[in-house]
Amino acid sequence: MINVGIVGGTGYTGVELLRLLSQHPQVRLKAITSRKEAGLPVADMYPSLRGHVDLAFVTPDDAGLAQCDVVFFATPHGVAMAQARELLAAGVKVIDLAADFRLKDVVEFERWYGMPHSCPDLLAEAVYGLPELNREAIKAARLIGNPGCYPTSVQLGYAPLLKAGLIEPTGLIANCASGVSGAGRKAEVHTLMAEASDNFKAYGVKGHRHGPEINQQLRTIAGDEQVHALFVPHLLPLIRGIHSTLYARLNSAGQAADLQATFEAFYQGERFVDVLPAGSAPETRSVRASNTVRIAVHKPLPDTVMVLVVEDNLTKGASGQAVQCMNLMCGLEEHLGLTQVPVLP
Amino acid sequence: MINVGIVGGTGYTGVELLRLLSQHPQVRLKAITSRKEAGLPVADMYPSLRGHVDLAFVTPDDAGLAQCDVVFFATPHGVAMAQARELLAAGVKVIDLAADFRLKDVVEFERWYGMPHSCPDLLAEAVYGLPELNREAIKAARLIGNPGCYPTSVQLGYAPLLKAGLIEPTGLIANCASGVSGAGRKAEVHTLMAEASDNFKAYGVKGHRHGPEINQQLRTIAGDEQVHALFVPHLLPLIRGIHSTLYARLNSAGQAADLQATFEAFYQGERFVDVLPAGSAPETRSVRASNTVRIAVHKPLPDTVMVLVVEDNLTKGASGQAVQCMNLMCGLEEHLGLTQVPVLP
Amino acid sequence: MINVGIVGGTGYTGVELLRLLSQHPQVRLKAITSRKEAGLPVADMYPSLRGHVDLAFVTPDDAGLAQCDVVFFATPHGVAMAQARELLAAGVKVIDLAADFRLKDVVEFERWYGMPHSCPDLLAEAVYGLPELNREAIKAARLIGNPGCYPTSVQLGYAPLLKAGLIEPTGLIANCASGVSGAGRKAEVHTLMAEASDNFKAYGVKGHRHGPEINQQLRTIAGDEQVHALFVPHLLPLIRGIHSTLYARLNSAGQAADLQATFEAFYQGERFVDVLPAGSAPETRSVRASNTVRIAVHKPLPDTVMVLVVEDNLTKGASGQAVQCMNLMCGLEEHLGLTQVPVLP
Amino acid sequence: MINVGIVGGTGYTGVELLRLLSQHPQVRLKAITSRKEAGLPVADMYPSLRGHVDLAFVTPDDAGLAQCDVVFFATPHGVAMAQARELLAAGVKVIDLAADFRLKDVVEFERWYGMPHSCPDLLAEAVYGLPELNREAIKAARLIGNPGCYPTSVQLGYAPLLKAGLIEPTGLIANCASGVSGAGRKAEVHTLMAEASDNFKAYGVKGHRHGPEINQQLRTIAGDEQVHALFVPHLLPLIRGIHSTLYARLNSAGQAADLQATFEAFYQGERFVDVLPAGSAPETRSVRASNTVRIAVHKPLPDTVMVLVVEDNLTKGASGQAVQCMNLMCGLEEHLGLTQVPVLP
Repeated sequence: MINVGIVGGTGYTGVELLRLLSQHPQVRLKAITSRKEAGLPVADMYPSLRGHVDLAFVTPDDAGLAQCDVVFFATPHGVAMAQARELLAAGVKVIDLAADFRLKDVVEFERWYGMPHSCPDLLAEAVYGLPELNREAIKAARLIGNPGCYPTSVQLGYAPLLKAGLIEPTGLIANCASGVSGAGRKAEVHTLMAEASDNFKAYGVKGHRHGPEINQQLRTIAGDEQVHALFVPHLLPLIRGIHSTLYARLNSAGQAADLQATFEAFYQGERFVDVLPAGSAPETRSVRASNTVRIAVHKPLPDTVMVLVVEDNLTKGASGQAVQCMNLMCGLEEHLGLTQVPVLP
Repeated sequence: MINVGIVGGTGYTGVELLRLLSQHPQVRLKAITSRKEAGLPVADMYPSLRGHVDLAFVTPDDAGLAQCDVVFFATPHGVAMAQARELLAAGVKVIDLAADFRLKDVVEFERWYGMPHSCPDLLAEAVYGLPELNREAIKAARLIGNPGCYPTSVQLGYAPLLKAGLIEPTGLIANCASGVSGAGRKAEVHTLMAEASDNFKAYGVKGHRHGPEINQQLRTIAGDEQVHALFVPHLLPLIRGIHSTLYARLNSAGQAADLQATFEAFYQGERFVDVLPAGSAPETRSVRASNTVRIAVHKPLPDTVMVLVVEDNLTKGASGQAVQCMNLMCGLEEHLGLTQVPVLP
Repeated sequence: MINVGIVGGTGYTGVELLRLLSQHPQVRLKAITSRKEAGLPVADMYPSLRGHVDLAFVTPDDAGLAQCDVVFFATPHGVAMAQARELLAAGVKVIDLAADFRLKDVVEFERWYGMPHSCPDLLAEAVYGLPELNREAIKAARLIGNPGCYPTSVQLGYAPLLKAGLIEPTGLIANCASGVSGAGRKAEVHTLMAEASDNFKAYGVKGHRHGPEINQQLRTIAGDEQVHALFVPHLLPLIRGIHSTLYARLNSAGQAADLQATFEAFYQGERFVDVLPAGSAPETRSVRASNTVRIAVHKPLPDTVMVLVVEDNLTKGASGQAVQCMNLMCGLEEHLGLTQVPVLP
Repeated sequence: MINVGIVGGTGYTGVELLRLLSQHPQVRLKAITSRKEAGLPVADMYPSLRGHVDLAFVTPDDAGLAQCDVVFFATPHGVAMAQARELLAAGVKVIDLAADFRLKDVVEFERWYGMPHSCPDLLAEAVYGLPELNREAIKAARLIGNPGCYPTSVQLGYAPLLKAGLIEPTGLIANCASGVSGAGRKAEVHTLMAEASDNFKAYGVKGHRHGPEINQQLRTIAGDEQVHALFVPHLLPLIRGIHSTLYARLNSAGQAADLQATFEAFYQGERFVDVLPAGSAPETRSVRASNTVRIAVHKPLPDTVMVLVVEDNLTKGASGQAVQCMNLMCGLEEHLGLTQVPVLP
């Protein structure tokens, strides 16, 4: 059994971790921290967990995190980097669901997240936790930067094309849309139901933090510093789900290729990536509350590829992916605790 | 032309007042105050008003409210009572959309709203602004306590029965449900879209502020201090709309009465109350964004009456009703500025 | 392993059965029938099941249902009664999710469902499948009438009061609200999204089929033919979830009783019924996609009890309950395949 | 006063026409036809119109359409072309909200709409009813093909760029999303609330009827047969609203141009097109239930322009635009009956 601690269990990635880990056959939940809610039974905040999670929130000092095998940070940006070093020194594996260990370039990090990075050396060591593209490194890692929700879907959509060298490196457009749970459980006017439901809009139009993460990773995947995607997020009037509509221009190899076969071969054997039959349009609900990503590839024009990707932003886009990384880091079967069938309707 | 000022124009009753008043043929909007947003064009906060409202928010001191004919308070509880006396002294008519002038009993006010009442004399003078039940007093008033959203629908549903003496005075049950705009435009976790959409629950189960208002008014309507309704509100996953399912036991007169005819006669000639044909079930969308209330009366058991009432909580339940009062107070036709057809679908 | 067949797997109770049974550790899915979709892989209709259900729909004749241990009917009313006898004769246990075996009175059945009942003898044998109230009979049954969605929540809410004799037998009011999945996957205008979302209304105001089922069962629970509840359903703008707000008048024993203790004792040890702490208001989302019912009991007036109940209408209100019955009938642990944590947010 | 008839008033464009025309100061509604609902008061189908529309549906034969000044066809494709000739001969102006008179190429029409075109000569005469781009022709027209909902927003977004020659003619991408009312009031499974709410997907991925309309019109606007846009529609979980995210590559002139100024100048004086300040992201709710389109132009990369456009698909995207055309054809002020302030929240 793996002993697990969660730092910051009051937000949506926290409660999603609890949903998944409480059903994981090899996990023992040891501690869930919240300074603000210390003493409160977790199930009092989230009645959905009554009968499944018996712990109360504790302060970080009382959590015994150093005795855990794995600690997840489901915290605001900046928390994990302040605490990771000590845990790592104690032999604990660390998975950060925030952005502290995603961007390899400290200057970029500081520009987009508005704070200095306190441990660049750990940043250099940290492994980007996208198993389908980085599995062996994750197995060997002791510190994971868990990918952003949008970047997960964008990378999984472009990777087969970039790896096979089928598209022009520039002019990529990632037109994405996310449910409101991506904004977290913060009291803010713009995500009130009276504001965000019955509405749709683009946002982050002057630049969004997931843009540099997407481009860093697409360049790594392609091995080509020229690669550039324009990332445009939109806010959907639903709770869970990301839909990415990805465009790129096919180069001559791409125009000649069998794109459907390329995708199917690339994700052959991947349990959490489902390449749909040719002609499909994936729906966000088809992955609701599951760790699965579904992908459809189209060639609407002779020189243009369009890839459609759906994921649940809280599961494969956050907490499910983190559990998948944990499984790999701990030598468990990759799918343990992640076998839920999507909830439909 | 009526010169109008609005104190506190940033919330949902404020923007609804602006929607209605900017279309009113006899109103000139003079000032909209917000200490916090002073200087900001109103249409920058609410792009829906671009091209319709050209004013910027001003501080109360710069608003020239004393030169207005009518001032609306679309403010938190406690603001109107602090400012009303001075405006009234200047000859301004005042309509408060908050609760400062609804509850006649100061002790009750202080218990439910958690603040002392600073002007009990004005409370005594204030007129309860429900035109269908109180029209002549409103015409003569200089200070209006605009009814709460739930109380409007509950009173209009029970009034024909109480006035005709057809129901037992106790055991009334008002099972009501409201859209989330009723909670206002405050940054709070429980009304985030990720919390309140795809969800339904009762709330205020230990007592809700609209309970004493409802009972005060039902007693006044009936002329019977014994009358008591149990009020149970629920939170709907939609933005606008209140649905009240009202139950009462019919007395012997009620069991013998033609309830449909009673309701039709009671609301004969009322432009904003629509009694539906026998057997109907009104939908909240049938009054969306309009000042109309629709009512259906049923007799599901020989000794039981059930009344179904729908209203738009921001229009007839708040700002539309306030405009209706203004029209009456200023000698205008009651429906001016309130002729919008409900938006469906 | 239990061999299971499903008749009529294309509707919402069918896909929910598939979601649950595909995760059940002791079930082997043998056949899913649909005359209309025969030959179509189930996962082509429901992409959420890709990777979880590999069967294709077959015609009833090709399904080998007589070789199954258990057959579920997730069909329109009238189908199960035409096919049950033959399956029972072959030693198959039958669970009908429609209404064919719920109402014990054939005349009532024919009045509300508009068709003759073809096997009254089986009706007499059939067991009403609400395990918390009828567990031993279910264990011994070979034919189950699975309860309606509303009746499940209403019975579980009133049962502790009726069994303990704490309420007056008449004047019960069951004010209920359901998500739209309760209407099934039929192409009809009134459940289109453009009609049913952003809307709320009562329906079935002249009488709803679940009314007689509720009253039959409440009388059975109480052992009192006088018991009568007025059932008023409403349509919620969400997909899954039923919320019941139940009212009754307390008799003198009830007025003296500790209602919270009564409920906690009554449901002591029940895995799928969660009595919330005093003062709570359960939310539909707290049981989303799970087999759990949550209940809160209130005494808003000295002579009045109010019980709030939430369930997922497709799980505990239909397919989950059917699986729970199957477990009991087959000597399995009651909770197998039903341990999903509710999905929140 | 203009005498107006509506053929096919039971769908969403029909009820939206009724909402707008019943508030139009210069319109007298003479007849609303429906073969299926003949005799039914319109307000019985749409209670939102109670008190606003007193007509009952009539059969086309009883409608006296030839005595109207203007007849709107809010019918399925193929109806208007069968009836237009006779009405035109009687001197009636005809506005078709379906697609019969949009596509100038009969072969294209027959390919996308699956029916022969019965009056190619009228097609040649028909004027495309997008006032901002075609005002003078509309004034002189007697037969209008009212634009599709998506094409309206796509054209208004690209027009300033195409007219000024600022973008490359190919590689345009129109990534659009519409609320479900765009699918009409037809009983179909895929637009049930239990299917379409809490969901998002692309659709029409093999080609959508609005694609050829968009490209026909963009070529006309640009005067360049090379122009090509890839049109990708998505289905939003809301009722009203279209959001178009438009991409194009700037040519050298475009890279040097002040795009904001270009748009502001192009739409100078247009009452129904609102160019937002630089840096904005328009929301669908900011135009809800109004005839306004809001547009923001961005230059996210030196060689790329992105235009964001919102409209209400039933108003400016259908019925509102049709009324705007009627006003022009009849010599009325263009905005009559279209001055509603958007409904927010």
